[in-house]
Amino acid sequence: MIKVAVDMMGSDLGPEELAKGVLDYLAEDKEMEVIAVGDESRLGLFKGNPRIEIVDTKEVLPMETSVVKFLRAKNSSMYKAIELVKEGKAQAVVTAGSTGGFLTGSTILLKNVEGVKRAGFCSPFPTLVKGKSAYILDIGASNVNTAEELVGFARLGKIYAELIGGIKNPSVYLLSNGVEEGKGLDESKQAYAVLKQQKDINFKGNTEARDSLSGEKDVIVSSGYPGNIFLKASEGMALMMQTLIKRAFKKNIFSKIGYLMTKSGIKEMKETMDYKKTGGAILLGINGVAIKTHGNSNAKFFYYSMKLANKMVRADIVNVIKKEFATNQE
Amino acid sequence: MIKVAVDMMGSDLGPEELAKGVLDYLAEDKEMEVIAVGDESRLGLFKGNPRIEIVDTKEVLPMETSVVKFLRAKNSSMYKAIELVKEGKAQAVVTAGSTGGFLTGSTILLKNVEGVKRAGFCSPFPTLVKGKSAYILDIGASNVNTAEELVGFARLGKIYAELIGGIKNPSVYLLSNGVEEGKGLDESKQAYAVLKQQKDINFKGNTEARDSLSGEKDVIVSSGYPGNIFLKASEGMALMMQTLIKRAFKKNIFSKIGYLMTKSGIKEMKETMDYKKTGGAILLGINGVAIKTHGNSNAKFFYYSMKLANKMVRADIVNVIKKEFATNQE
Repeated sequence: MIKVAVDMMGSDLGPEELAKGVLDYLAEDKEMEVIAVGDESRLGLFKGNPRIEIVDTKEVLPMETSVVKFLRAKNSSMYKAIELVKEGKAQAVVTAGSTGGFLTGSTILLKNVEGVKRAGFCSPFPTLVKGKSAYILDIGASNVNTAEELVGFARLGKIYAELIGGIKNPSVYLLSNGVEEGKGLDESKQAYAVLKQQKDINFKGNTEARDSLSGEKDVIVSSGYPGNIFLKASEGMALMMQTLIKRAFKKNIFSKIGYLMTKSGIKEMKETMDYKKTGGAILLGINGVAIKTHGNSNAKFFYYSMKLANKMVRADIVNVIKKEFATNQE
Repeated sequence: MIKVAVDMMGSDLGPEELAKGVLDYLAEDKEMEVIAVGDESRLGLFKGNPRIEIVDTKEVLPMETSVVKFLRAKNSSMYKAIELVKEGKAQAVVTAGSTGGFLTGSTILLKNVEGVKRAGFCSPFPTLVKGKSAYILDIGASNVNTAEELVGFARLGKIYAELIGGIKNPSVYLLSNGVEEGKGLDESKQAYAVLKQQKDINFKGNTEARDSLSGEKDVIVSSGYPGNIFLKASEGMALMMQTLIKRAFKKNIFSKIGYLMTKSGIKEMKETMDYKKTGGAILLGINGVAIKTHGNSNAKFFYYSMKLANKMVRADIVNVIKKEFATNQE
């Protein structure tokens, strides 16, 4: 039996919406139990469910949270949810709440795996190869990272792509502003030199942001700030293109009929681009499975988050990371 | 009469292809003359044209160019083209060659306008508002910029958006990883504090990469490295979406008919996204109009580059920048 602590209060859409996603997943997976942390009066859907334990709290961690604020918010749903993992009562935590708060809380309560200098937020991206993801980290846990941290990200990403992505000997790249070895920020150039020497990492050199989602590139390593720009520029352009496509189909009566005829292909495209199916961003390198979903997560998104939590716990990823970093001290 | 120095050797597609673009533009604009720098034996199309002077050279600046290499390449087409602006024989230079070489050469030969700490590459981006561009700088002249340089970019971008984009009192934003004032890299936070105080800059705060191309945001200021990631991530995702759309239309016989019915709308979308029409990236802040087009520029791209050069010279943008930086010493 797997136990997942779920912060029910973090989404803009409210705990009622998230509860639906949790129930959808539990209906499918009889081997999971949930500790739902949140306002019990809004979790009527969970009532009487033998696989759901409710930890009642109405306090929500504010979006902008400092370390001090987090430590004072011991009764917040996010604090309590992370704490359940710390105490060994749950193996994973899922939240849609404050990213900064989640990062602070996970780092303080769960702590980094020994040998991990810095935990990184990792997110799968859609690629041109159907069903294949690229894993990019860090997408915003830090702003600036050292070369040593970047090498750590490469190792974390490699493990994640192997265990969760199911990719054998995943290719690892550094995000840069040119493919040549001398390109990029100083820390990236230094990391390049170290990564070249790592026999257990299938390091392939630099990749430009333009060519990163071809499907042949499995793990893409970046400092947090440019990684975040990469994520959001890609998201923004994907949304913009979707809007432009909608406009094209709405242009006149012919294009409207054209849409009907193209519908099944368009549906496939939408599915490729559906970030809800990713299950969220994963904080890699801490002692516990920690998943952060969008602030406006709906039931579908949470369903996939539960699924991802299950996959990560079953793969025993935290222990794999521990072993890997115990034997590879950069 | 306007004179433009054109480096004919920089494009992968060869001088013959670029020559077509130059001729297309000259046919339309009788008030422009061109000094074409390149291999005369490949510029047969220009023969006998009274408005084209050929400066014959076969030497091409290599893609990877250091300052020393550039200074030694005095016979290269790019060196000579930039030199023509320095000597006052041309008012603008257009090239498809090495970005690094162009940056080095323009900075060394033409020098920054007094008061400009650092020149920035600026590029127009398509937005959701039809016909409206957002102007983003720096997209890669530097990697890391100081707060002072970012404030300079804001001013350069403002002038460009006004004079060339035709936008009155353009809104200016800092690219960041959050909209709150405290978000972003240190230099960006410092620039924020200074920009708030500038009465002549319509500074609106931070923008995230995701929301930058809505059409309401006119100038977006960034350090060079994340600006470059923004540019290339956007390009990459736009290309990916276009590939996915093509796939959707090719899915079956119905979708193929659907395409035919949607064609005019799709054409509009393609036009919105057509980077060839931008004319290239502009190096702002140096003593001369300097335009860098894609390394694989074709005739159409060069046609628009010539058009842009004309617009920038007619707007007397270099002198406007000089005046602005003489009166606003940050």
